[in-house]
Amino acid sequence: MRQELRLSSGTGHEPGEMRPGGRTARNREAVCRATLRELATRDYAGLTVESVAEQAGVHKTTVYRRWGGVDGLIVDALQYAVDDDWQPDLTGTVDGNLLRFARIALDSFTDPETGPTHAAVVAAAFQSERAIDAVHSFFADRFGRASAIVEAAIERRELPPNTDAVGVIRCVMAPIYFRLFISREQVDEADVEQAVQAALAAARAGTFGIPE
Amino acid sequence: MRQELRLSSGTGHEPGEMRPGGRTARNREAVCRATLRELATRDYAGLTVESVAEQAGVHKTTVYRRWGGVDGLIVDALQYAVDDDWQPDLTGTVDGNLLRFARIALDSFTDPETGPTHAAVVAAAFQSERAIDAVHSFFADRFGRASAIVEAAIERRELPPNTDAVGVIRCVMAPIYFRLFISREQVDEADVEQAVQAALAAARAGTFGIPE
Repeated sequence: MRQELRLSSGTGHEPGEMRPGGRTARNREAVCRATLRELATRDYAGLTVESVAEQAGVHKTTVYRRWGGVDGLIVDALQYAVDDDWQPDLTGTVDGNLLRFARIALDSFTDPETGPTHAAVVAAAFQSERAIDAVHSFFADRFGRASAIVEAAIERRELPPNTDAVGVIRCVMAPIYFRLFISREQVDEADVEQAVQAALAAARAGTFGIPE
Repeated sequence: MRQELRLSSGTGHEPGEMRPGGRTARNREAVCRATLRELATRDYAGLTVESVAEQAGVHKTTVYRRWGGVDGLIVDALQYAVDDDWQPDLTGTVDGNLLRFARIALDSFTDPETGPTHAAVVAAAFQSERAIDAVHSFFADRFGRASAIVEAAIERRELPPNTDAVGVIRCVMAPIYFRLFISREQVDEADVEQAVQAALAAARAGTFGIPE
């Protein structure tokens, strides 16, 4: 989703900050945006503290002191990317809400601005243990938020009680990620609809039931 | 599956070969095996014609002449890896056959010998257009063969007629690949069973119906 790996301004507050919008916050925003851009254009192997510092207009000793190195930059850039206030739309049916969620995600993967960053972050996890941790947290956060769609559907009795909400969200997104980043197949609107319908059929059949 | 990216001897015949087991065939086997090993230990960025030639005990000018370069090596190594005679087990129910297929695949991903090669091939596709083509062909071949499981089930009326067999296979494997290579989550036996049950529930509900 365009908001998922946002390249817009940050809202995160943290201990080192004097105030939101202060120099520390501005530096973080510049460095995280530069890291995401550099990841998208050069990939993990080409990412250096020097290139990020130059792109961000921040002295490289500041970057080394605050972020430690390349892995620290990736972890914080991903954290920055998810530090937004995105929440899923819960109006309408579970079919429509999941379809909207999946479409926004697909748009962000195919968007010329945010798409390469998504791919670079997935690729970085093949080369860096800390990137794996960051990706893991990223999905825990995103899928956790999206699972409100499934929880609302359980409440409205559209899906069985005890349905594992994150399991349903993963089932919707897995074939889309698989086609894009593993089997390298085209993904169109019909594929997104099929992914949603497959996940819902499985959920209705009780496949994602959490044992009592 | 252990057979999927096999590191055992080849059976492929091709125009440049004098006879199976001749020097050309032995060179191909040595070079492809070295490429798969090098990919697994160094990844795409570290793969060189020189290192493959040295590992294979073949002169580097031979490698350059026959494979052109690193991308040609990856394409042929993947082709070599799928040139086997693996066929799915069709005895038993569709549930059991799909579960066996998915378990073999998971074993090959977590096997210390074949696992790193799988990961390296998926990772290479982030860096090379020719690796994308090779991965694409690899899945078309593997999923095409595994789809015999679904076709047998349709014939036995376990699944609706007009079910897209490859769609069902992709639905089984996508969450397993997603957990391993995208969200970086553990995959256990229960996850494999859930992936099979979800795909079957969706197939029985008609989600993978091909329009007449």
